[in-house]
Amino acid sequence: MFPKDFMFGVSMSGFQFEMGWGDERDLDPNTDWFVWVREPGNLVNGVVSGDLPEFGAGYWLNYEKIHQLAVDFGMDTIRIGIEWSRIFPTSTESVDVRDPNFLDKLDELANKKAVEHYRKIMEDIKSKGLKLFVNLNHFTLPLWLHDPVAVHYGRPTDKLGWVSERTVHEFAKYVAYMAWKYGDIVDLWSTMNEPHVVSQLGYFSVSAGFPPAYFNPEWYILATKHLAMAHNLGYDMIKRFSDKPTGVIYSFTWYDTLNPNDREILEEAMYLTNWFFMDMVKEKLDYVGVNYYTRTVIDRVEQPLAMGNFNVRWRILKGYGYACDEGGVALSGRPASDFGWEMYPEGLYYVLKAVSERYSKPIIVTENGVADWNDRLRSTHLISHLYYVERALEDGIDVKGYLHWSIVDNYEWAKGYSKRFGLAWTNFQTKTYHPRPSMYIFRDIIRARTTKEFIGFDPYKVRTEL
Amino acid sequence: MFPKDFMFGVSMSGFQFEMGWGDERDLDPNTDWFVWVREPGNLVNGVVSGDLPEFGAGYWLNYEKIHQLAVDFGMDTIRIGIEWSRIFPTSTESVDVRDPNFLDKLDELANKKAVEHYRKIMEDIKSKGLKLFVNLNHFTLPLWLHDPVAVHYGRPTDKLGWVSERTVHEFAKYVAYMAWKYGDIVDLWSTMNEPHVVSQLGYFSVSAGFPPAYFNPEWYILATKHLAMAHNLGYDMIKRFSDKPTGVIYSFTWYDTLNPNDREILEEAMYLTNWFFMDMVKEKLDYVGVNYYTRTVIDRVEQPLAMGNFNVRWRILKGYGYACDEGGVALSGRPASDFGWEMYPEGLYYVLKAVSERYSKPIIVTENGVADWNDRLRSTHLISHLYYVERALEDGIDVKGYLHWSIVDNYEWAKGYSKRFGLAWTNFQTKTYHPRPSMYIFRDIIRARTTKEFIGFDPYKVRTEL
Amino acid sequence: MFPKDFMFGVSMSGFQFEMGWGDERDLDPNTDWFVWVREPGNLVNGVVSGDLPEFGAGYWLNYEKIHQLAVDFGMDTIRIGIEWSRIFPTSTESVDVRDPNFLDKLDELANKKAVEHYRKIMEDIKSKGLKLFVNLNHFTLPLWLHDPVAVHYGRPTDKLGWVSERTVHEFAKYVAYMAWKYGDIVDLWSTMNEPHVVSQLGYFSVSAGFPPAYFNPEWYILATKHLAMAHNLGYDMIKRFSDKPTGVIYSFTWYDTLNPNDREILEEAMYLTNWFFMDMVKEKLDYVGVNYYTRTVIDRVEQPLAMGNFNVRWRILKGYGYACDEGGVALSGRPASDFGWEMYPEGLYYVLKAVSERYSKPIIVTENGVADWNDRLRSTHLISHLYYVERALEDGIDVKGYLHWSIVDNYEWAKGYSKRFGLAWTNFQTKTYHPRPSMYIFRDIIRARTTKEFIGFDPYKVRTEL
Amino acid sequence: MFPKDFMFGVSMSGFQFEMGWGDERDLDPNTDWFVWVREPGNLVNGVVSGDLPEFGAGYWLNYEKIHQLAVDFGMDTIRIGIEWSRIFPTSTESVDVRDPNFLDKLDELANKKAVEHYRKIMEDIKSKGLKLFVNLNHFTLPLWLHDPVAVHYGRPTDKLGWVSERTVHEFAKYVAYMAWKYGDIVDLWSTMNEPHVVSQLGYFSVSAGFPPAYFNPEWYILATKHLAMAHNLGYDMIKRFSDKPTGVIYSFTWYDTLNPNDREILEEAMYLTNWFFMDMVKEKLDYVGVNYYTRTVIDRVEQPLAMGNFNVRWRILKGYGYACDEGGVALSGRPASDFGWEMYPEGLYYVLKAVSERYSKPIIVTENGVADWNDRLRSTHLISHLYYVERALEDGIDVKGYLHWSIVDNYEWAKGYSKRFGLAWTNFQTKTYHPRPSMYIFRDIIRARTTKEFIGFDPYKVRTEL
Repeated sequence: MFPKDFMFGVSMSGFQFEMGWGDERDLDPNTDWFVWVREPGNLVNGVVSGDLPEFGAGYWLNYEKIHQLAVDFGMDTIRIGIEWSRIFPTSTESVDVRDPNFLDKLDELANKKAVEHYRKIMEDIKSKGLKLFVNLNHFTLPLWLHDPVAVHYGRPTDKLGWVSERTVHEFAKYVAYMAWKYGDIVDLWSTMNEPHVVSQLGYFSVSAGFPPAYFNPEWYILATKHLAMAHNLGYDMIKRFSDKPTGVIYSFTWYDTLNPNDREILEEAMYLTNWFFMDMVKEKLDYVGVNYYTRTVIDRVEQPLAMGNFNVRWRILKGYGYACDEGGVALSGRPASDFGWEMYPEGLYYVLKAVSERYSKPIIVTENGVADWNDRLRSTHLISHLYYVERALEDGIDVKGYLHWSIVDNYEWAKGYSKRFGLAWTNFQTKTYHPRPSMYIFRDIIRARTTKEFIGFDPYKVRTEL
Repeated sequence: MFPKDFMFGVSMSGFQFEMGWGDERDLDPNTDWFVWVREPGNLVNGVVSGDLPEFGAGYWLNYEKIHQLAVDFGMDTIRIGIEWSRIFPTSTESVDVRDPNFLDKLDELANKKAVEHYRKIMEDIKSKGLKLFVNLNHFTLPLWLHDPVAVHYGRPTDKLGWVSERTVHEFAKYVAYMAWKYGDIVDLWSTMNEPHVVSQLGYFSVSAGFPPAYFNPEWYILATKHLAMAHNLGYDMIKRFSDKPTGVIYSFTWYDTLNPNDREILEEAMYLTNWFFMDMVKEKLDYVGVNYYTRTVIDRVEQPLAMGNFNVRWRILKGYGYACDEGGVALSGRPASDFGWEMYPEGLYYVLKAVSERYSKPIIVTENGVADWNDRLRSTHLISHLYYVERALEDGIDVKGYLHWSIVDNYEWAKGYSKRFGLAWTNFQTKTYHPRPSMYIFRDIIRARTTKEFIGFDPYKVRTEL
Repeated sequence: MFPKDFMFGVSMSGFQFEMGWGDERDLDPNTDWFVWVREPGNLVNGVVSGDLPEFGAGYWLNYEKIHQLAVDFGMDTIRIGIEWSRIFPTSTESVDVRDPNFLDKLDELANKKAVEHYRKIMEDIKSKGLKLFVNLNHFTLPLWLHDPVAVHYGRPTDKLGWVSERTVHEFAKYVAYMAWKYGDIVDLWSTMNEPHVVSQLGYFSVSAGFPPAYFNPEWYILATKHLAMAHNLGYDMIKRFSDKPTGVIYSFTWYDTLNPNDREILEEAMYLTNWFFMDMVKEKLDYVGVNYYTRTVIDRVEQPLAMGNFNVRWRILKGYGYACDEGGVALSGRPASDFGWEMYPEGLYYVLKAVSERYSKPIIVTENGVADWNDRLRSTHLISHLYYVERALEDGIDVKGYLHWSIVDNYEWAKGYSKRFGLAWTNFQTKTYHPRPSMYIFRDIIRARTTKEFIGFDPYKVRTEL
Repeated sequence: MFPKDFMFGVSMSGFQFEMGWGDERDLDPNTDWFVWVREPGNLVNGVVSGDLPEFGAGYWLNYEKIHQLAVDFGMDTIRIGIEWSRIFPTSTESVDVRDPNFLDKLDELANKKAVEHYRKIMEDIKSKGLKLFVNLNHFTLPLWLHDPVAVHYGRPTDKLGWVSERTVHEFAKYVAYMAWKYGDIVDLWSTMNEPHVVSQLGYFSVSAGFPPAYFNPEWYILATKHLAMAHNLGYDMIKRFSDKPTGVIYSFTWYDTLNPNDREILEEAMYLTNWFFMDMVKEKLDYVGVNYYTRTVIDRVEQPLAMGNFNVRWRILKGYGYACDEGGVALSGRPASDFGWEMYPEGLYYVLKAVSERYSKPIIVTENGVADWNDRLRSTHLISHLYYVERALEDGIDVKGYLHWSIVDNYEWAKGYSKRFGLAWTNFQTKTYHPRPSMYIFRDIIRARTTKEFIGFDPYKVRTEL
């Protein structure tokens, strides 16, 4: 049974949802990602999809419709993202944070229209009786801080993104300004989304197509550290203006090996991917935001890769977790999503348990979902993953809410519009949002406040005893 | 919009649902099918699945639970089947129908326990506020009328099933007795289910594994005629004791060709498969029961097969309609069910239109469903097929109701338990029934009384304009 | 090393090769198979291919070209089949075999044109320096002995084929007549080809599409016994007129289980399929003709099928041996032929060893080949199977020769022209024969008289140590 | 019929064949490729295979065996490659080519052991009666000229490879030295292999994993021009010391579109890919070396990519030519190789015709082959491609020879040892070479000097009339 105050809702971000009409009314060309997805080398070599974010879901103008959809389907919480680049299209480096009037100075630099527009969005959420969850950074950086093309090609630039400590300090200013502006209205804060994804895909696993796709293991570690610093500073900034719960949203994966004796690499992989960052920020967290999609199955390699204090002694096995064929079947027999991600709901339970034991903080499931255009897996995805959240609650793990990724189809980064995560199918031409069948299932679970009546049928073997 | 009195419900049959515990409490070993599915030659050569019907869904004892499930999900109508062999396990040939007391004589021969048990089932349906739709024959014949093994092997027998006119006359007695016994309680009558399937698969397309699997084109035509006679006699018998709507349940398919100029074979195939039987019974129908699963795509052949007055000048194309790979994708790009049946919802619209134009009778969709263990297609199946029913209503076609096949998983004839048509997944060990996600979608559509809010999302291209 | 007198050649049969022009020059409509492949029920239900044997390879008129092809590619032996129905298109029952003049009487009944034509074929073979191997019966029966359609449909008939002992006696007459006619020219005799296939597929595994496809386990055993009797009588008849080696051609398969402890069912399956017939004829064999295509993997079943003294306690596992997807990959990882037969060359070695140990007779590999239109597997098939023949020779097993199935594409029974076993691709329109690349490999092996130089490369893992 | 002096042989290169034991006896660590295939970023992101070239075919020490193999199979020509980095492991920039003694100075810098070893290789070729074809550059550059890692990551470096004109001048010295050293023994010269592949994959289609994988369309054009300059200078250098035919080896592809009206982009693609380079060097060619593997099917794009004077207005269609699934089937129905390259033999004919018409030079087919571990396609590949060479000869096109790629399996650049192009399967552990069946077919064609007797069978439709 989900408790009465358990939050049910959806998560969104800025870059992936806001733009739609491609004109001055909603356009934001000032991010690294905006440039990245149209860079010729990326296009020629299939690194990005060729889809353009400016013809997307259109949340910037259509937010009321999307909020209403959440209400209609029984949700009580919406997570949105704010685009730093919209608030500060130009540099804030001239502002000294030690200056007692630094917020006023930032206010002079800020794009007032954007500040006002975000408030209108927030007010609409609140007016509909929904909880407002605001995340301040979701992958994108303002171009004045990150020139991903220059970095990618090794051209001289001082816009190094998270590799530069400068970004940390500008982030703190931005967060402070946001807390100052919206401290009165926001119910839940997150400084940033999936920081480790930014550093890992940016500087290590560069075949994923994330900017700047510049292989540099030291930068991977360095950027991770800077992101942790940025969170810690940001947390303190928020606390100056708001007493609302503040945390970080982190993408956890669960690790397995096929060789049950190989515990060692599991622990190392768990540490590098999950705990390394989280340990750095654990003093500055009112809750942990858990994003969970699937597991990762690894195998020991003969030749480890040394990387600072780390030794990457494993490789990812194809056919499991994130490494399945798109729309195929994992080697475990579980179906894989349109993204090639294995259905592995018990992994969410394992992650919740591990996070809870390590940090003893409340947890919010801040993302969980499935790329599934035809809605063939999403109903059972919802039932099985929420079943494991319920299991976690029964085991005394303090989970406060579940936010599905996402309410409408949106722009899936390097993959563009081909990967559809929406509970509602999005017609990008008409900017209309049509609930998929699974959205009714989500509503039914929210109403019932339990998955128990849904789990008799289990297409991919929810193990009822772990 | 489905009108207020539009029936929503489910269809079941006797043989496929009743047995479950395999003991005297529910066993009926007196049908041709019971013998057929355990015949050694059929088993050795994979003609039947090896699954046994006596370990099935267990409706005979669990009917209350299954009826309640229908109520819980908002349905208002249940179609059940009566097993002739349960009512008359032994021959009724000694009774002369011209005898004024023939019903009393039949009553002496009838198995009173079975007669009473069926009444209890019916009373439970009525007591739950549901409409009671009774179908009197669904594929099976009593062994005293049909020895499928003897016929299959060409052994001398006078138990020839529908090839013999004798079966027609015994059927009339059985129907009369049923109407006499249950005329007070039944709301809707059908004499028989899919008569043409019985004759076609029995004597022509014998690779489907239906008894007696004895290729004889003349018998195919002859049995079809006898089935039509049986319906006509049965209709009159029912009318003696009941003024409730009485019809026949018929499996219609829609025909297409890849060559748009080849209208001729389409019309011939439509006539042989759909109209030939229906034309023979059209005077004795208060409504037409339409079962629809998918289309059939055909191609002209050089060497036609002569068959009485018919000339079969076509062959079925693989990769479309009923002839797709199981769980695969049709050559049209539509997904195929676990049975290898293409998703082709517009075919239901075409059939409703054609039946309505030809017979000008009310129509009930008496079966429609999908073999889909994992419930990957059923939600969209329901939405898209009901969308086309709604379209038909808007076009003025007089459709009175929609009965889904089926409420729980059951025994799919020669395929056994591998093909799962249930809205609720059935645990055959525990005899428990667990709603699949799609069952909630069905409930939601019944509540909304329209598919309109569901059709924005269409995974297999519901053409909104025909 | 293959010894100097080791025979290399090809095998053919009558029905599958002779016809081609479909007119009186080569037509033989007097066999059960000729009728069977055009029976409407078989056609409607896909039991046979629809291809017709009268438009085949055309050996009857083109024999010189085909013999020359064998010569050109270094072969020294050709096996042909004689069609009983050509020699005796009408019944020989009037002739009493005890009559001292019975051969003259048979001579009166015989079709002299056919007798002469076969002699011309034989003379051409001899004139080209080739050994002449004659097999007297290869699946087909004269219609006056077997009405497969009547038997299939259980219609009364006395033309029961091998189920009737009468067939045995007529066979003895036919064999005697052949030996009398051709005793001067034939170098090697076989009474019949694959007798157990005739009985098993005819009366047990009836889904293979072999006439009469009438499931009757007792007839399966009875027909097998009659075939053994027929061989034994035939052997004695041949010996009256010829001192040349006389044997039987038998299709052996090798059995495996996945469960290594399940030796018992292996032995039972080996006995029923291989030894039961062979033991009955072992006193009348100068050599054993081994046909080998692939193995059979079996599994124990719970409910055995009783069949006379036999208890079939196993079932065939899909994905191995004969039960693979056409053109696919076996579950062992070996490629499967166009027929879905696993490449399993070591099975030939196992069979040769087992046959040699059990019967202590010389062995001729009388058939071995692969359905492979595109010649993707045949080269390696030849190398690997001949490697195992060579291994058997090294182990002291007395193998006298290897006859490949076959020299040109031909009519593959129920499958028609889709399965191509020819070393030379056959253009059935022009009656021309074009060596596939693998035919050169066969020539090279014959020249080298060893596979040793070919086996360094092994695409499907010839285990060099068993 | 192939004329008497038509060359039949094989092609090899240095880097892909020479190393094998991985120690000082054969190791050459001084190339860009040697570094590239072990660069951590390439390994982590799967850009290279992880296979290492130093454990390869071992030609450096085993050359006699490999030459003998060519002799044994009837060949008369061997093409080898010389590794610039072996001859000059260190810079030659100190030598002034205008210095009359520049060759002596180069001689001082040259690695005499390598110079001598290559001569031994060449002498062995000649002593076996084979023609010696020497290619002077095959993809690799000495590290002192190209630091691919620095370029890839945009780190400052003056070792820019072919982007730098300096490389052109050093190349001319190297070529001069080679001609001076080996002018007495070499029969046929090529300056370089597939120059356009080096520039295109290096700076444009960077997802192929070729160094430096640095997207820069201008560099693509610039490097192409430098390669042309280098050839032209090299040609003149060779002519100083040798009167033997000297040319360039170029990888031609044939272009198709699915839209027959779209001739324009075909011509543009042909120009950019084939003629742009060739036109620059056409005055310095005694023959054109044609490498041909498959075609490319293209489609017009809306947004062309401007690139100097070029406008790339097309994109490559998946499912055809080079863009098929590995080991799959092209959308044309032709099989694809283990590399995913469509079998398209007629493309070779089209290329020969087009090259001949445009340049009126003799042609040598310098590479043609197929990645086919299991030898399932190679026999028919050989027959069909050589058929089209024969066709070209019949049409009067002056083709001088056919060199298959290749004689033994080798190191396929970024793909490592997984792609097997050898006529002989290579056991990399034992350094032994085992003829695949197709190698005998090659021998047979060489002997017959025609494909005519092989082409009756055509698995992928050799169109006999173009």
